Amino acid sequence: MSGLRLIPEALGREAFSAFGEVIETAGRPADEINYGQTLRFDNLAEVDVAEQGGRPLISIFRSKPVTLPFRPRVMEYHPLGTQAFVPLHHHPFLVLVAPASEELDSSMIRAFISNGRQGVSYQRRTWHHYQLSLGVECEYLVIDRGGSGDNCVECELKSEVWIGG
Amino acid sequence: MSGLRLIPEALGREAFSAFGEVIETAGRPADEINYGQTLRFDNLAEVDVAEQGGRPLISIFRSKPVTLPFRPRVMEYHPLGTQAFVPLHHHPFLVLVAPASEELDSSMIRAFISNGRQGVSYQRRTWHHYQLSLGVECEYLVIDRGGSGDNCVECELKSEVWIGG
Repeated sequence: MSGLRLIPEALGREAFSAFGEVIETAGRPADEINYGQTLRFDNLAEVDVAEQGGRPLISIFRSKPVTLPFRPRVMEYHPLGTQAFVPLHHHPFLVLVAPASEELDSSMIRAFISNGRQGVSYQRRTWHHYQLSLGVECEYLVIDRGGSGDNCVECELKSEVWIGG
Repeated sequence: MSGLRLIPEALGREAFSAFGEVIETAGRPADEINYGQTLRFDNLAEVDVAEQGGRPLISIFRSKPVTLPFRPRVMEYHPLGTQAFVPLHHHPFLVLVAPASEELDSSMIRAFISNGRQGVSYQRRTWHHYQLSLGVECEYLVIDRGGSGDNCVECELKSEVWIGG
């Protein structure tokens, strides 16, 4: 294995802020509602999908696992809307991102690992890899954009990158 | 214990269709995406929150459990938007609903039990009880409406109803 080698970092709101939002309760304020029966952790991620008549979709993605070391071959971004993934399981999973730019720069890829409870919402135009389960097939609740318009741009990595191992 | 006694029914799409949608993969078609790595179960519930300038919110609710038999005292509806709850756990939980009407009719309440994987989305104006965990405190991902306007109507039950037991 040659090429760039990335060891995933623990996912955290500050480190991820250039790419989107981390959906988690840890460290977030909450309001007591429902006569004290419930804590509401409000508005954890922006849903920005209205451009060109878009509407929010609630879907479930079921993703087969990959094994480490993993070599990403292609990444994508969505020009018209955010895309949020929230794990419906408690297994750590990989999150690969790169800053928004016309051409994907492989040297700018960052690798994060969710603790299995943390979800992520990718900003519009943030390069990201499709969902990468580890160990077992996992399901994710996805909130993204439905409607007309071309909302997916893909780019192949021009150099060799390996994650973990 | 006097009054109406309801034994919860298993939650299912057909039985629940008068109140909203069941968010689950079982029995739903899926598209293969991400080079065969992922199944997308698309558009499992409508997000209808745009009235009066509303916008979708992604939040997490953490709800303390109740015990059976449980006596509901108050139910609510949201005139301006749908509200979806998806369990971030695998514990069965209660779902209490009643048909849309100006005044809540206690005799029309229906009790369902989610298998712990199934989420629900309440239609606008469908009477429902706030989230009812069973056994342990549980978290739910919630997609509902943010924005101005009065979006919660509550009504006390005028007669005694007991769920399960």
